Amino acid sequence: MGGEEMKPFRQLISFEEAKRIIMENTQEMERIEEVNIVDAVDRVLAADIYAPFNVPGFKRAAMDGYAVRAEDTFNASLTSPKKLRVIGKIFAGEASRKKIGEGECIQIATGAVLPDGSDAVVIVEDTERQGDMVAIYKPVYPGANVSQPDADIKKGQKVLKRGEVLNPPKIGVLAALGMERVKVYERPKVEIFPTGKEVVEPGKKLEKGKIYDINSYTLASLLKKAGAEARINEIVDDEKEAIERAIEKARNADYAIFSGGSSVGERDILADVIEKKGKLLFHGIAVKPGKPTICGMIGKTLILGMPGYPTSCLTNAYVLLLPSIRKMARLPLELKKEEVTLAKNISSTIGRHQIYTVKVKDGKAYPAFKESGAITSMSMADGYIEIPANVEFLEEGSKVTVTYF
Amino acid sequence: MGGEEMKPFRQLISFEEAKRIIMENTQEMERIEEVNIVDAVDRVLAADIYAPFNVPGFKRAAMDGYAVRAEDTFNASLTSPKKLRVIGKIFAGEASRKKIGEGECIQIATGAVLPDGSDAVVIVEDTERQGDMVAIYKPVYPGANVSQPDADIKKGQKVLKRGEVLNPPKIGVLAALGMERVKVYERPKVEIFPTGKEVVEPGKKLEKGKIYDINSYTLASLLKKAGAEARINEIVDDEKEAIERAIEKARNADYAIFSGGSSVGERDILADVIEKKGKLLFHGIAVKPGKPTICGMIGKTLILGMPGYPTSCLTNAYVLLLPSIRKMARLPLELKKEEVTLAKNISSTIGRHQIYTVKVKDGKAYPAFKESGAITSMSMADGYIEIPANVEFLEEGSKVTVTYF
Repeated sequence: MGGEEMKPFRQLISFEEAKRIIMENTQEMERIEEVNIVDAVDRVLAADIYAPFNVPGFKRAAMDGYAVRAEDTFNASLTSPKKLRVIGKIFAGEASRKKIGEGECIQIATGAVLPDGSDAVVIVEDTERQGDMVAIYKPVYPGANVSQPDADIKKGQKVLKRGEVLNPPKIGVLAALGMERVKVYERPKVEIFPTGKEVVEPGKKLEKGKIYDINSYTLASLLKKAGAEARINEIVDDEKEAIERAIEKARNADYAIFSGGSSVGERDILADVIEKKGKLLFHGIAVKPGKPTICGMIGKTLILGMPGYPTSCLTNAYVLLLPSIRKMARLPLELKKEEVTLAKNISSTIGRHQIYTVKVKDGKAYPAFKESGAITSMSMADGYIEIPANVEFLEEGSKVTVTYF
Repeated sequence: MGGEEMKPFRQLISFEEAKRIIMENTQEMERIEEVNIVDAVDRVLAADIYAPFNVPGFKRAAMDGYAVRAEDTFNASLTSPKKLRVIGKIFAGEASRKKIGEGECIQIATGAVLPDGSDAVVIVEDTERQGDMVAIYKPVYPGANVSQPDADIKKGQKVLKRGEVLNPPKIGVLAALGMERVKVYERPKVEIFPTGKEVVEPGKKLEKGKIYDINSYTLASLLKKAGAEARINEIVDDEKEAIERAIEKARNADYAIFSGGSSVGERDILADVIEKKGKLLFHGIAVKPGKPTICGMIGKTLILGMPGYPTSCLTNAYVLLLPSIRKMARLPLELKKEEVTLAKNISSTIGRHQIYTVKVKDGKAYPAFKESGAITSMSMADGYIEIPANVEFLEEGSKVTVTYF
C-alpha cells in the first residue's frame, strides 16, 4: 500500500461495458510467422493459398486392375468374356513407356499413371488372369476408374483462404501442394507478472504469512490452451518503480497481466502507472467475483490488473481475457456450453454480474461454491453459470447454461 | 505389388465390429512422466494428490480494512461510531509482532496475517481515518472478514484424483501446494510410416507419376491435436523387408501407422508381415471410404494399415483411430457434434457404413463430396455425417448429426 490512502474503487462499470471496452481495444493479430505444416494445426492461415499445379497432375488409375481401351471391353459378359493380352505391369509411382494397342492391356495399380493408348481401367474383381492373357467379364466406358489430372486440385485454384483455421484436412491440402512450411498469424504474446509481497513461486520455501503464487499458473495454462504464448515473469514488488519496469519489459507484448495486486493500494499504483504512461480504460467491474479489475492500454499493449483472489482472477480470465485473446488470435471462441437444470436455489447480489461455479451430474448443476477466493471451489467444479446483474434469485429446477472449464 | 497375385479383400467386417476390435485392443496408458505444471494443462494426472499442509496456512484478512477485537465494535453505528487507536499497519505477505489490546486496531491489507489479539476485520468502507484513530461505523461479529488457515485446502485432504484431466483450476491447486512439477500419463507414441513408391515428401521435387505425401501430415496433425506424439518417418518401400524394418523401429511405440499402401499388393505385404510377427485383427472394413484398412497387433504395438486415398485415410483416422488414441491417453473423446438439417438427398451404398463430408451453413448440411480420394472434398467441408450400412437413402430435410473436423 506504500503509504497511499486506502481509497475505495473508482466508478464501477457493468460487466457488459467492461467486456465491450476490452473487445473494442483488442486488435486482430497482424504479425506473421512461418511454421512447419505439421505444427500448423489450429493456427490461422495468414495468406490465400493458390495451387501452382494440378493435383494429382496426371491421369491415373483410381482402382487396381487393367488399363484398357474401353472399346475393347464392349459386349464383355460373365458368359462371354473379352480376352486381352497383358503387355506389362505398372506400379503406383511409375509411368510405363509402353503404348496399348488394340486387344492389349497393362496390369495397373491404384495411383499409377494411365499408359498411352488406354482410356479406362477394368477393376481386378471383374477379371481373371490366364497366363499372358486376361479375361474381362464386364465392359467399361471411356474414363471408367480413371482420375483426371485436375481431379483433386486445379492449377491456379484458390484452395485455402487467409483467416481459415488449419485443421487436418486443410493441412492435407498444403501437403498436396508440396508445401513444407506455411505462413500463419503469430500467437498473441502475453507477459504475466505475479505481484505482491505475499506470493512465493511454487517450489520455493514458504515463510509465515506467504502463500504460493496460483494466479500466474492458472492464467498461463489457460492462455496456452487458448492459443497464446504466455511467459511467467519473476514476482514484481507492489511499488511504482517495479511496476514501471515490468510495463517497460512488456512493451513488445500484446498483453501484460498483473496477476495479483490484491489490496486497494496495489491496484491504485498500477492504475496510476497506466494513467501516467497510457490510458486507463476502467478500474473496477460490477462483477462477482472479480470486482477489483483494472484495464488499460500503453502503446499497443493491453494491460490487465487482475484481482488477487485465485477464483476472481481465473473467472475474470474466462469471461473477459479469453474472448479477447481468441479475437486477437483470430480464432473462434468455442466455449463448451451445455444447458442443464439447476439442482438448488441460488441467491445472487443484485447489481453485480455473478460468475457461479457448479458441478454437473446427470444433467443437473450443483453449486460448487466454497469460501470466496478458494481455488478448490473451482478445481472441484466442472464449470460456471453466469447470473446477470439484474437477477437476484435462481430457482431450483430452472434451466441454466454451464460453460465448462 | 511385388510379384504377388492381385487378391481381392479377405473377409470384410462391419464398421461396428472394426471399431469394437480396435477399442478392445487399445490399452490405457500406464507409462508416467513428470512435467512442469504450466505444461500439464490437458494432461491426465497419474497419482492422487494429497495436501501436505493447510492453504492459506494462517488466519488472514479477507478484505482491506482494520483488524479489531470484534467486541470493541459492538453497538457502533453511523451516528455513533466506535473510535479505535491504530497501532500499526500490515501489508499482505507480512505478519505483525504487535498484539492488539482493548480499544486498539491494526490497519490490514487483504491476505495479511491476522494479528494476535484480533478476531475480525472491519472493511475500509465502514471506517473513517482520523490521524492515529479510526472511526468504526458498523459492528462486526468475531470471524468477520477473516479466512481460516484451512479455508481453501485442509492438510491431508485428497485435492485431486488420479485420472483427472488437468484444467486451469486444477493446475491452480497444484500451484497452491507449491508443486513445480506433476506426474502425468505419457502421451501415446505413434510412428507414422508413409508407404508406396508414388509418394514424395513435401518440399522435394515431384517426378512424373508421383504425388506429394498427404496422409502423413493429416495423420500427424490430427494426432497432435488429439494429444498424441506423432513422428513422421522416411518413406517406406512397399517391400517385405522394408516393412519389417519399420515394424522393428516401432517396437516401443504404442501405434505404428502405415499411411498409404494403396494397392492390393502393398496391403497384402503388410498383412502377411503382421500375421508372421503378431496377430492380424482384421483386413478390410465395410465402410466407405476406407475399405482397405488393416489392423493388427505385434507385441504391445497396435498396427494400422491405412488406405492410400487421402480422404479414406483421414476419415478412418477420425472414426477409428481418434477414439482409440483418446482411450489410450485416458482422455474423453470430445468430438464437436451438431444436429442439422440435410439440404439435399443423399444416396448411400447399402452394406457399407458411409462417412459423408458436408458443409454446414445456416443450420443446413450440404454435401461436400468431390471425386473419391480428393483432399479438397475434405478441406472444403466442415465435417462429416455417418450413414449406417443398412441405410440406402437420406431425404432432404431429415435431421443428421455433423461431427466437425
